Amino acid sequence: MRILGIDPGSAVTGYGVVERRAGKIVHVAHGTLRPPANAPLASRLDHLHRTIGEVIARHAPDCAAIEEVFVAASPRSALVLGQARGAILAALAAGGLVVSEYTPARIKRSVTGNGRATKQQMKLMVKRLLDLQRSPAADAADALAAAISHAQAGRLESLGVRGAGRRRRPRVERIVFSARRPR
Amino acid sequence: MRILGIDPGSAVTGYGVVERRAGKIVHVAHGTLRPPANAPLASRLDHLHRTIGEVIARHAPDCAAIEEVFVAASPRSALVLGQARGAILAALAAGGLVVSEYTPARIKRSVTGNGRATKQQMKLMVKRLLDLQRSPAADAADALAAAISHAQAGRLESLGVRGAGRRRRPRVERIVFSARRPR
Repeated sequence: MRILGIDPGSAVTGYGVVERRAGKIVHVAHGTLRPPANAPLASRLDHLHRTIGEVIARHAPDCAAIEEVFVAASPRSALVLGQARGAILAALAAGGLVVSEYTPARIKRSVTGNGRATKQQMKLMVKRLLDLQRSPAADAADALAAAISHAQAGRLESLGVRGAGRRRRPRVERIVFSARRPR
Repeated sequence: MRILGIDPGSAVTGYGVVERRAGKIVHVAHGTLRPPANAPLASRLDHLHRTIGEVIARHAPDCAAIEEVFVAASPRSALVLGQARGAILAALAAGGLVVSEYTPARIKRSVTGNGRATKQQMKLMVKRLLDLQRSPAADAADALAAAISHAQAGRLESLGVRGAGRRRRPRVERIVFSARRPR
C-alpha cells in the first residue's frame, strides 16, 4: 500500500509518499509545492490542484492522508488555509484517492509515541523512521508524518487492534514502536 | 463580454452568467450546484471543481466575478467556506478565467444603488434588471449580482469613471441606475 501524505498551505504545501511493505514503512518520495507567489489567488490554487495531480501521476499512491484542522487561528487564516485545502482535496479525489484525516495528536503519537511531541522531535523521528540521510523540510516532514500515521493505522487494523488507541494507549504504543524498528 | 458570477458554498454554490451587450446587461443562465451531500469531503470538492468546469465549457464566459469574503463568522465556518472557495477558484483559473472580487457592499450598491440593501431587495432588483420571469434561488441571485457588479464595473471603466465610486457616490449611482434601465 502506497500512501500520499499532504501538509497543505497557501504558500508552501508539503507532500510525502511512503509505502507499507511487509510490515515495514518505506520512504518513496517527498517534496514541497510552491505556487508562484505573485500570481493571482485563483491561479495559485489552480497551480496547486495541477501539481498535486502531477505528484499522483508520478508516484501512483493508493490513498491519501492529511492532518485534520483544529482551527485555533483567526477566521482569516482559516479561510486562507481552507482555500488551499479545498483545491488540494479536490485534486486528491480527482486522482481517485480516498482521503483519511488524522488529528495532530494522533499523528504525533504515531510517529513519536507522544501526542505532544515538538516539531523538532517529529522531524527527527520521521528521518529515523524512514532511514533518510537528511531531515526533510518542515512541510515535507509533516506530510510524511501524516502518511506514516495512515500506514500505522492500516497496520493496527490488520492486527485487529483498531480503536484500541483510546482505550489502551500503552499497548498500542508498543505496537507502534515495534513498527518503527523494522526487523 | 460574458461574465460568470459565483456564490460559493459548501452545500450549495450558485452561479449566474450575464453578458454586457452595447451597454445593456443581458441574462444568459443561472443555476445551483449541489455536490452529493453524503459523499466524502474531497469527493464533494472534486464534484464542485468539475461542475464549475462544465459550466465554463457550456457558457464560455470571458471572466469571473465572486464576492470577497469578510470573515465575520467562526474559524470553523471560514475553513469550510474556504475549502469550497479553493476548489472553485482553482476551477475558474483552470478554465482560463481571470477572477475579480467585489465586496458585499459594492455588489449591493451596483445592483440596488444601496450598499446596505436587504436580501429581498437584491433578489427583486436582480430579477428586474435581467428581465427574469421568476426570482432565481437565493444562491443563484447572489451569483448573478456578482456578475452584474463586474459588468457595471466594466461599464464604468469604459466610461472613464473608474474609482469614482468612493469619492462621488451619487454620480456613480446615477450611472449605475441608467444601466438598470436598458433602452
